[in-house]
Amino acid sequence: MKKLADYKVGESIDLYLLIKQSIKGVTQQGSSFMTLVLQDKSGDIEAKLWDTKEEHALLYAAASIVKVGGELHDYRGKNQLRIKTIRPVKEDEGISISELVPSAEKSKEVLLEELMQYFFEMKNPHIQRITRHLLKKHQSAFMTYPAATKNHHDYVSGLIDHVVSMLKLGKALADLYPSLNKDLLYAGIILHDVGKVVELSGPIATQYTIEGNLLGHITIMVNEISKAADELEIAGEEVMLLQHMVLSHHGKEEWGSPKRPMLKEAEILHYIDNIDAKMNMLDRALGKTEPGEFTERIFPLDNRSFYKPGIE
Amino acid sequence: MKKLADYKVGESIDLYLLIKQSIKGVTQQGSSFMTLVLQDKSGDIEAKLWDTKEEHALLYAAASIVKVGGELHDYRGKNQLRIKTIRPVKEDEGISISELVPSAEKSKEVLLEELMQYFFEMKNPHIQRITRHLLKKHQSAFMTYPAATKNHHDYVSGLIDHVVSMLKLGKALADLYPSLNKDLLYAGIILHDVGKVVELSGPIATQYTIEGNLLGHITIMVNEISKAADELEIAGEEVMLLQHMVLSHHGKEEWGSPKRPMLKEAEILHYIDNIDAKMNMLDRALGKTEPGEFTERIFPLDNRSFYKPGIE
Amino acid sequence: MKKLADYKVGESIDLYLLIKQSIKGVTQQGSSFMTLVLQDKSGDIEAKLWDTKEEHALLYAAASIVKVGGELHDYRGKNQLRIKTIRPVKEDEGISISELVPSAEKSKEVLLEELMQYFFEMKNPHIQRITRHLLKKHQSAFMTYPAATKNHHDYVSGLIDHVVSMLKLGKALADLYPSLNKDLLYAGIILHDVGKVVELSGPIATQYTIEGNLLGHITIMVNEISKAADELEIAGEEVMLLQHMVLSHHGKEEWGSPKRPMLKEAEILHYIDNIDAKMNMLDRALGKTEPGEFTERIFPLDNRSFYKPGIE
Amino acid sequence: MKKLADYKVGESIDLYLLIKQSIKGVTQQGSSFMTLVLQDKSGDIEAKLWDTKEEHALLYAAASIVKVGGELHDYRGKNQLRIKTIRPVKEDEGISISELVPSAEKSKEVLLEELMQYFFEMKNPHIQRITRHLLKKHQSAFMTYPAATKNHHDYVSGLIDHVVSMLKLGKALADLYPSLNKDLLYAGIILHDVGKVVELSGPIATQYTIEGNLLGHITIMVNEISKAADELEIAGEEVMLLQHMVLSHHGKEEWGSPKRPMLKEAEILHYIDNIDAKMNMLDRALGKTEPGEFTERIFPLDNRSFYKPGIE
Amino acid sequence: MKKLADYKVGESIDLYLLIKQSIKGVTQQGSSFMTLVLQDKSGDIEAKLWDTKEEHALLYAAASIVKVGGELHDYRGKNQLRIKTIRPVKEDEGISISELVPSAEKSKEVLLEELMQYFFEMKNPHIQRITRHLLKKHQSAFMTYPAATKNHHDYVSGLIDHVVSMLKLGKALADLYPSLNKDLLYAGIILHDVGKVVELSGPIATQYTIEGNLLGHITIMVNEISKAADELEIAGEEVMLLQHMVLSHHGKEEWGSPKRPMLKEAEILHYIDNIDAKMNMLDRALGKTEPGEFTERIFPLDNRSFYKPGIE
Amino acid sequence: MKKLADYKVGESIDLYLLIKQSIKGVTQQGSSFMTLVLQDKSGDIEAKLWDTKEEHALLYAAASIVKVGGELHDYRGKNQLRIKTIRPVKEDEGISISELVPSAEKSKEVLLEELMQYFFEMKNPHIQRITRHLLKKHQSAFMTYPAATKNHHDYVSGLIDHVVSMLKLGKALADLYPSLNKDLLYAGIILHDVGKVVELSGPIATQYTIEGNLLGHITIMVNEISKAADELEIAGEEVMLLQHMVLSHHGKEEWGSPKRPMLKEAEILHYIDNIDAKMNMLDRALGKTEPGEFTERIFPLDNRSFYKPGIE
Repeated sequence: MKKLADYKVGESIDLYLLIKQSIKGVTQQGSSFMTLVLQDKSGDIEAKLWDTKEEHALLYAAASIVKVGGELHDYRGKNQLRIKTIRPVKEDEGISISELVPSAEKSKEVLLEELMQYFFEMKNPHIQRITRHLLKKHQSAFMTYPAATKNHHDYVSGLIDHVVSMLKLGKALADLYPSLNKDLLYAGIILHDVGKVVELSGPIATQYTIEGNLLGHITIMVNEISKAADELEIAGEEVMLLQHMVLSHHGKEEWGSPKRPMLKEAEILHYIDNIDAKMNMLDRALGKTEPGEFTERIFPLDNRSFYKPGIE
Repeated sequence: MKKLADYKVGESIDLYLLIKQSIKGVTQQGSSFMTLVLQDKSGDIEAKLWDTKEEHALLYAAASIVKVGGELHDYRGKNQLRIKTIRPVKEDEGISISELVPSAEKSKEVLLEELMQYFFEMKNPHIQRITRHLLKKHQSAFMTYPAATKNHHDYVSGLIDHVVSMLKLGKALADLYPSLNKDLLYAGIILHDVGKVVELSGPIATQYTIEGNLLGHITIMVNEISKAADELEIAGEEVMLLQHMVLSHHGKEEWGSPKRPMLKEAEILHYIDNIDAKMNMLDRALGKTEPGEFTERIFPLDNRSFYKPGIE
Repeated sequence: MKKLADYKVGESIDLYLLIKQSIKGVTQQGSSFMTLVLQDKSGDIEAKLWDTKEEHALLYAAASIVKVGGELHDYRGKNQLRIKTIRPVKEDEGISISELVPSAEKSKEVLLEELMQYFFEMKNPHIQRITRHLLKKHQSAFMTYPAATKNHHDYVSGLIDHVVSMLKLGKALADLYPSLNKDLLYAGIILHDVGKVVELSGPIATQYTIEGNLLGHITIMVNEISKAADELEIAGEEVMLLQHMVLSHHGKEEWGSPKRPMLKEAEILHYIDNIDAKMNMLDRALGKTEPGEFTERIFPLDNRSFYKPGIE
Repeated sequence: MKKLADYKVGESIDLYLLIKQSIKGVTQQGSSFMTLVLQDKSGDIEAKLWDTKEEHALLYAAASIVKVGGELHDYRGKNQLRIKTIRPVKEDEGISISELVPSAEKSKEVLLEELMQYFFEMKNPHIQRITRHLLKKHQSAFMTYPAATKNHHDYVSGLIDHVVSMLKLGKALADLYPSLNKDLLYAGIILHDVGKVVELSGPIATQYTIEGNLLGHITIMVNEISKAADELEIAGEEVMLLQHMVLSHHGKEEWGSPKRPMLKEAEILHYIDNIDAKMNMLDRALGKTEPGEFTERIFPLDNRSFYKPGIE
Repeated sequence: MKKLADYKVGESIDLYLLIKQSIKGVTQQGSSFMTLVLQDKSGDIEAKLWDTKEEHALLYAAASIVKVGGELHDYRGKNQLRIKTIRPVKEDEGISISELVPSAEKSKEVLLEELMQYFFEMKNPHIQRITRHLLKKHQSAFMTYPAATKNHHDYVSGLIDHVVSMLKLGKALADLYPSLNKDLLYAGIILHDVGKVVELSGPIATQYTIEGNLLGHITIMVNEISKAADELEIAGEEVMLLQHMVLSHHGKEEWGSPKRPMLKEAEILHYIDNIDAKMNMLDRALGKTEPGEFTERIFPLDNRSFYKPGIE
Repeated sequence: MKKLADYKVGESIDLYLLIKQSIKGVTQQGSSFMTLVLQDKSGDIEAKLWDTKEEHALLYAAASIVKVGGELHDYRGKNQLRIKTIRPVKEDEGISISELVPSAEKSKEVLLEELMQYFFEMKNPHIQRITRHLLKKHQSAFMTYPAATKNHHDYVSGLIDHVVSMLKLGKALADLYPSLNKDLLYAGIILHDVGKVVELSGPIATQYTIEGNLLGHITIMVNEISKAADELEIAGEEVMLLQHMVLSHHGKEEWGSPKRPMLKEAEILHYIDNIDAKMNMLDRALGKTEPGEFTERIFPLDNRSFYKPGIE
């Protein structure tokens, strides 16, 4: 079935879409309107709803599903949708939000299964038990949350998708550099961003929570490791080492890690996190670019444009 | 009784001193010697012990008390002690370490009593209970540890001395700016550096512990607040607010706070900490300087020299 | 009487307002309009005047008082006024500008009296005489100017309000740290920003003067101290010390002080200035914020948002 | 056979050693001496030769082999050799320099063979031909030079060792992220540091050449690619792409790359280079450290100390 | 004849103009329009063309000449042209692009002649031959290209204009500081920006080329010097010195020079380039400013405003 | 007559020398010695005086002239003098300090005459009168002071030497860029560093004064301009413009200018100052370097080494 991203300027659409964002406005002349961001799995698009009334705010609030007819046109270099018809979805049409939000390519169950394989290569019982305990405690959210509100892996199950990809890279590195401790490295990869399930509001229309703003996912997770060790009655250096892995994974104080990596595995964790996030951003930006052209500027990559070679 | 700091170049001494540091060396020609740093309450001094033997290392290890005779001379602008006689103290001479290390002017008991008064101005029961709980848990170390290994309040009971001084300043500010929340501010002041009792090794010959290096006193204390709340079965915003107060008190990411202050009281806590530490450093450096002269460079004050005016 | 800040979106107003800013514009279709910023003591609001003619520019210039009728609406998250009727105030209506601009809570006379008390604690005659001389010379402007064009204490008599608040804080610090020299500290507080009366254009519609741009209030005031000493025939270290207090009060070269503080009192002056300015900004921003919410971003506080706790 | 690194303080040695560095000195009292750095495959050590004469300078110049007897002692925490006997090696003793300098674990022939395998995965004929051409042109030096004068892979054949290790990592990444272009990535890895064979003086007693100082290995290699393309009469985007890979591999302007990476493969090349260099430095530093201890500070890793866990 | 810059707001024009930029747009209501930037030698102006059709895009593409009638009005402090009539120029009207683009005051032939005089003061045959060779190779573009896409010397023949001005300044400096080597200095000035003829797209509607983005004019020119030396069979230090002059002329790594200047002449070249560019920007900005006023902010001069004194 | 700089290692000297610096020391074994820095016009050298007594400190204090016999030797790559005989000069030997300190090549009278010529090109009477007034007021010190304590023009009359050289460069620039205002530029050059006569202690054994440390030469001179204008009863923009020229001549806040240049002439003054200082440092460092070698690192030039080409 044709999706939002498959339509071109000038074409007409008639689709079920999810309202990702909904903002009320008033024109300079004083009449009301609404700006909607509408999405399906393939992407999103902006649309204006002119001359709106009070009741429209509720009808077309964020996270609602609507049936929309209209036409695509180009507004300042970005596609925009001119709405001709719009109505809330009816219950009996049987459309669920999960059909309309982008998500990891693999199912969350498959991803979890892949992740669980890595425990078999871990030997240290303390590290294993703490990691399993925390994974289990947060498993449901961990399997559906995105890894970030934007930029990279910002889709349903993006967090576990990112972690599984990092584990693969971690295994490749541990094979090439056998002095790396797999227990620390794999546990660090699995736990490093679990704090996001508290820092962020959820898988849809994701925002920062108050606790996310005031403490941040790093501190949240370091606390969790501490509590897990208490609950499991585990003492020993492993607790501190795992906390340090999470604490230092942003690599520098100015990037939010109060301690720089002081374990070889912590240094490598920082690199693995970076490479996987950057590959995700680059693949996405280059996917929208023609050979022989430059991508749009990518803010978290120092605002650089990348070139897509014309050669094959 | 005349103390180490009272002697001048050329004078002879005959004193009980504590060995603060003890390092073995070999001259370029191959003979052994030891470099000792000797101290009493008034200050410390370097001394060389020439042509030493294996057994001297044990006899004159750090934290031992010795009876030393010798003469002060100037070596490259710093006083040095030429040792003429040295021997370990005998048990029946009755000299204890506490007589030989600098400490806060007031006794730790007096300081604790002053500190406890501030609880009477606090109203929020959650904040009070968590703060009292953690103070009690770490009370013994909290009353004897220094606030730092060097630079400011780096003496026995320096930590509680610093905290009481900050509380006084906090009260003055809360009086001038009544919108400040005293619960948060006082609790933040009391708790902000308690993590030092884990980060540092102890009141004498203080060094960083492994946990201190890998986690740091901020993270250690944020964990402790989290556990205290669990033990006391306190839930609610107060826990997160207290954690944020401690987390952000270094003021900037590059100074070790993974979150900048986002509470008015957290911003002010950072200032109070700074002012009290700087006044301590400045008073110490200016105390060693003549009117009309500049102090030595003070590294943690951006390596500045300060001028001591000639006017009164 | 109900003021501008008391009205909500949708309500009608009929008020005397001061035109704070007046800018002419042309629509893309070529018709003329004016953008006015209108204010009373409680705040300000933007309004558009459509299809204007040449003569309106004069009639509705900045610093004019007008009688305005209209309705508040929301434009891109900011309140805006839809003007229905507007006319210049008539002389016999007896509205003065001072009724329409925000100002310090206390009267300038009260503030001056409070300030003068601090001279009684000063002992050094040279410092006192120079400070009194310069205060007298610039007294009239000093009592009405704001401390800045925006951000903090940016209202009529904001400068003296800021200085009196700083003196209180200075006194509290001098009581806690008795080694501080009150002569230097109080004189430094009083004089540090007097140069603003040359740097800025006046209490209303405040802008930077050319001299303000090319020299700045710090340099202007350091010159003034030098001249005052000559006029009063005062020689001696005090002149240089006062100049250094003013010169260094921004704390760092990159913040406009060509010398960093090299006097203990200069270091503390920098802190006092900072704390008082920040408390003013924070109280203002938090005053507009609901408990459990974050303030808007505050640019001069590193663009941070602050959280207003929900606890009491 | 026992090597330099196997001896402990107090033991006597009698070894063939290479003079790595030789510097003349005069004592403050005016007598001549020489400071030698002596090495074998296992490491190096400093030694003093007292009361030397003119002719000793030639006899014991850098890159000479000597037979040395003496004893190890500790000087300021570093081992030093007290020379008792020293003489130049005799030709018939059959000692070659290659026996006395550290080198890659695998032979350069084996490393080259491993490297050549990667050409089989490359498809683009232009990229292949340019890469092969430049490899052949500089092959002899490329196989013996170190990758740097110090810090990482600073031994004979260190350059090719580093490149082969990077190729393995590159292959692992290309397998995980199939969108990576192997032609660009492998060619970039092979060529990125070939300019070092001009920038540095040679495999022994390595220093920067004048051209190395004034142009640097990046610029040198970018020129070489340009010339190679001309000689092979290859035109087309590939030339520019290869030049960009080399040009940008330091990642940032301030690290010596006049252009930041603008190709996905260039971004990844920068990471691969970093990871392999850091693993080499970390393994070396941790190899000299006991479990439960911290390494010495590693300057190119932001001067950090790393912790070697006590757990297994 | 009256030019674009001579008209004031409210006046009518009827002029031949060059379309410098042409961008299609759609109003929020969905109708098409075009934004044109129109220029003649005296400057440029923005204009809107409303309700356009498909065919207009071709008719009014960038680099086309048009005959335009209309009226100037002010839009947000910038002049804008309200188009009343517009049509493509006819061939028999005999208007050429060169009549409509700003260019250096002197003709390119005169500038070249001035430049060539400096060869007479050069003595080193290697430096001379390489410089002449490269000048000849790129002469045609070198004589017409701008020195930059904006900011300074951004007009037809701006590059050679900038170079000739720099040569004059170079000669003045060489006269004042006779230790400067004129061969290196003059050759460095002539060659430093020749790479711009590859980095930029041409004299009209100038943009960066792909090669310009990926390699940059510095690297491009350093390659060219290398090739020129090969073609001329010149070996010797001069080649490396010239490469270093070009390589380092941006002065710092973060400004795009992978090596900082390490030759006295390279250091001076950087200053000459800076002074001449800044004088060009300052004269332009001050030319548009009234005495007693400040210029607009000049971005490449750290975003500063400059004051134009009222004195004569 | 052969001077200090003409002797080589191994040669004997017998010269009158000035003691530039004199520092007492004690060996680790406890005997006294003195470290002297001895100079004549050609340069300076370090020497040790062993086994000294109390009275030697006075006899061989800084700024004394001595007759010294001894031998040059090399100590850690620096020449050092082994003293064999030393005695204070006798009055009847008729040696004056001025014969033994380096100074500008031209006499101060000639330099002043050259400087005065530039007044003939100045037209604005206010600027002229203020500049002449301040030159006259400080003329005597201005003609003998160095421009700095080290790095550049750090010799007797170095200040006026630097200013005259800058005036020549200023004239060359004003000829090339006729829009420059010569009044401002020349006055700015003459006045920019006059404050050094207060900031520094004098022409011999130059140090910073207290006022120099607390206020700095920029602030001192800006005050002086202000006072001069008052004394000469000159009002008008010129006073402010001259103050800005001096105030901004370090170019950036972090380099000690509280305002960045906002006048074209101020921007150029900063460049002229820089170029002249750098040429002085470079000529000095390159003068001590052989062709084909690098200079020692030059700290104020970002610690760079410069290459002295082998070509002529």
